[in-house]
Amino acid sequence: MPQIDQYLQDEAPRFEQELCQFLQIPSVSADPDCRDDMHRTARWVADQFKGLGFATEVVETSGHPLVYAESPPVEDAPTALVYGHYDVQPPDPLDAWISPPFTPTERDGNLYARGATDDKGQLLTHIKAAEAWIRTEGRLPINLKFIIEGEEEVGSEALEKFIPEQAQRLACDCVVISDGSQFAPGRPAINYGLRGIACYELHVNGPNRDLHSGSFGGSITNPANALAALMAGLIDSQGRIQVPGFYDDVVPLSDHERKELASLPFNEKEYFEGVGVKEALGEVGHTTLERRWARPTLDINGLWSGYQGEGAKTVLPASAGAKFSFRLVPNQDPEKITASLQWKLAELCPPGIELELIAMHGSGGVMVPLDSPYIAAAARAIEHAFGCPPVFTREGGSIPIVTTFHEALGADALLLGWGQDDDNTHSPNEKFCLADFHRGIKASARLWKELSNL
Amino acid sequence: MPQIDQYLQDEAPRFEQELCQFLQIPSVSADPDCRDDMHRTARWVADQFKGLGFATEVVETSGHPLVYAESPPVEDAPTALVYGHYDVQPPDPLDAWISPPFTPTERDGNLYARGATDDKGQLLTHIKAAEAWIRTEGRLPINLKFIIEGEEEVGSEALEKFIPEQAQRLACDCVVISDGSQFAPGRPAINYGLRGIACYELHVNGPNRDLHSGSFGGSITNPANALAALMAGLIDSQGRIQVPGFYDDVVPLSDHERKELASLPFNEKEYFEGVGVKEALGEVGHTTLERRWARPTLDINGLWSGYQGEGAKTVLPASAGAKFSFRLVPNQDPEKITASLQWKLAELCPPGIELELIAMHGSGGVMVPLDSPYIAAAARAIEHAFGCPPVFTREGGSIPIVTTFHEALGADALLLGWGQDDDNTHSPNEKFCLADFHRGIKASARLWKELSNL
Repeated sequence: MPQIDQYLQDEAPRFEQELCQFLQIPSVSADPDCRDDMHRTARWVADQFKGLGFATEVVETSGHPLVYAESPPVEDAPTALVYGHYDVQPPDPLDAWISPPFTPTERDGNLYARGATDDKGQLLTHIKAAEAWIRTEGRLPINLKFIIEGEEEVGSEALEKFIPEQAQRLACDCVVISDGSQFAPGRPAINYGLRGIACYELHVNGPNRDLHSGSFGGSITNPANALAALMAGLIDSQGRIQVPGFYDDVVPLSDHERKELASLPFNEKEYFEGVGVKEALGEVGHTTLERRWARPTLDINGLWSGYQGEGAKTVLPASAGAKFSFRLVPNQDPEKITASLQWKLAELCPPGIELELIAMHGSGGVMVPLDSPYIAAAARAIEHAFGCPPVFTREGGSIPIVTTFHEALGADALLLGWGQDDDNTHSPNEKFCLADFHRGIKASARLWKELSNL
Repeated sequence: MPQIDQYLQDEAPRFEQELCQFLQIPSVSADPDCRDDMHRTARWVADQFKGLGFATEVVETSGHPLVYAESPPVEDAPTALVYGHYDVQPPDPLDAWISPPFTPTERDGNLYARGATDDKGQLLTHIKAAEAWIRTEGRLPINLKFIIEGEEEVGSEALEKFIPEQAQRLACDCVVISDGSQFAPGRPAINYGLRGIACYELHVNGPNRDLHSGSFGGSITNPANALAALMAGLIDSQGRIQVPGFYDDVVPLSDHERKELASLPFNEKEYFEGVGVKEALGEVGHTTLERRWARPTLDINGLWSGYQGEGAKTVLPASAGAKFSFRLVPNQDPEKITASLQWKLAELCPPGIELELIAMHGSGGVMVPLDSPYIAAAARAIEHAFGCPPVFTREGGSIPIVTTFHEALGADALLLGWGQDDDNTHSPNEKFCLADFHRGIKASARLWKELSNL
């Protein structure tokens, strides 16, 4: 694609200028004062698509608008749906910024601004890649759909409704998302798996009031003791979760995956040092990276009971509580796990205690098979643009919207992060390496071609 | 002792008037505005002793004064040390009182006022009993020493120092304390055992900051998970504490004691209903009363970690903490238990976690053997005054000053509560049954006689 690559090179300065325009609008979705700016940003994005001749709609919602666009149809070609978000995190604390958050400033090959990498810079790569095709070839080699939201940083409420409602309109062969990082500088990555999540709050209720632990202790079940026993009963000292059937549906790591993960230049010692520990307890039989990315977990997120102040208060608390969450892996089903958890807690519950389990949000994990042709296409596109093949990673966190795309559209997601781990997303001095911006555009342009051959 | 009993009957109205005078002084030790009243109350108590010809001293301290008094020596007679406190709890909430807290008011045979039973009314019984001997016989049959403090409700700081410092002066054969309750109306009791206590705070430290439970969960030890496992590891599902050697020094309940406890009219169903539970987990092999009074316990008093607010926050907390306490029984040693606890926690501690255990206050349990001649003497005195023999009870709580007396003086304590469980100590509308006041005086007067025969 020499013509396209030439176009990208020629137009690079303008692309950067447009990115700066995009970054100047303070589209902080959490800030009610930015309501007009959110609309202004949505229109800016919509104008990009209109300029390419895409059928474009700004969809008003109860929150911030969505931008939806479709390229002119290409018969008998696959369809890719690109997802991105134009909203950004609040810039606070302002005085920690070297240059103002909404005054994009270049230093050392990086462009500093709120949203530079998360996600304005990354989502723009796919728009500019489409532009290159249109301006040089007159048409795209595939059908492109774009869905760009303005509420990613505040919960994606509107989009979570829109996707299942508009599933037919959004129908596609794969979803392309650039809203993350490479594995390391010079190590582009394809993230082929995300963990799911199931969050809970547990209330452990005992006597009708706090009791004197001298007068009553030993003869009345202590809810805090019970909570410790309940939570400890859910996971053994080998890190294996004790909820019946918990591992039944887990897709085990293949030998190939384990080899791939083991081959990544991951320094465990540095990883532990980075968070201030020397070692860790984790599920027996798995490496640290496998535990982080590809194995289910149980983490207590919060605990409370009785007296938390200074000194001693010898109380037998009336109640105790915990927040906890499982990270799930494909194909674990949050609802099935909730039912089994209920059963296990009831089994562990001592006499004299009433339990209340509140199941908060849950979503399954997602994974694209490593032998998927979409992964192979993306790998070729990345190698073309970055000069080296990508590594294959998974991510321990959950991106609920990816699960929603997967469940509503049945499409695999290509998670192609162009950023770096030190891009300060959600922190002051967010940046995007301009070389990564241009490599991202180049990879995206090549991706449309690679997908068209499938 | 017909003369003495007659004197008590004749002087009963005056005793009540004097009790009312005593109760009118608002000796709230916690209230800085009552500082002068504290001194006034101490002088009132001292004047009682001076009126009997006792060697009397008001001992100034860094807090509220102590009153110390000694009866004229009686050669070759035993010595009893009477303990009591002239300070009272704050009367709040004031508007819940039917009659004002410092205006003693009789209703239905009860005298209502703050301090009526805790402890002005009860301590006065022993002074009036001494008076009866002096006024009718001209002398006491034994040596009496009185130590009356003004800081019981705020921690007994001065007295805790005074006792070991003045151990020789306080030397005695037994300590007599009336600062508690009968088992039930018409069921006077001798409390022959108190549990001790050992209080701790445990800090469980993991990573150097709260981590994202998606990105890190499974690969970094979670301090909240660790805390649950640690606390659960200290006690098994049978209620048996798992600290090595924890039970080694426990004085087991004798068959005789178990029979005595079982014979008490204790309604377990009502007990559970009173605190709103249907059943309880307790140490296997023991009854509810045994668990309450005579077996050691482990109660978590407080728990905290991570996120305690609304909704979900999927954090892997940097730390977690607990406050917990053992109730100890004779002859468990708090220091020995702390050392063993340290060892056990270290054994249970998972990799990647640093523990910090803070030992707060500890004191051993105390028990007077049921076959002690002092117990027998007190039982005879009570039967004489109340018309029925006392029941023998223990108390699940700890009274640190009793342990201090025991340790510093080597003397057994006779805990002879003249109050009732519904006397509203520490609550509005505190009261003392006037019949109990007079029965208490009569029992005390008889006790001096019974002790003189030992």
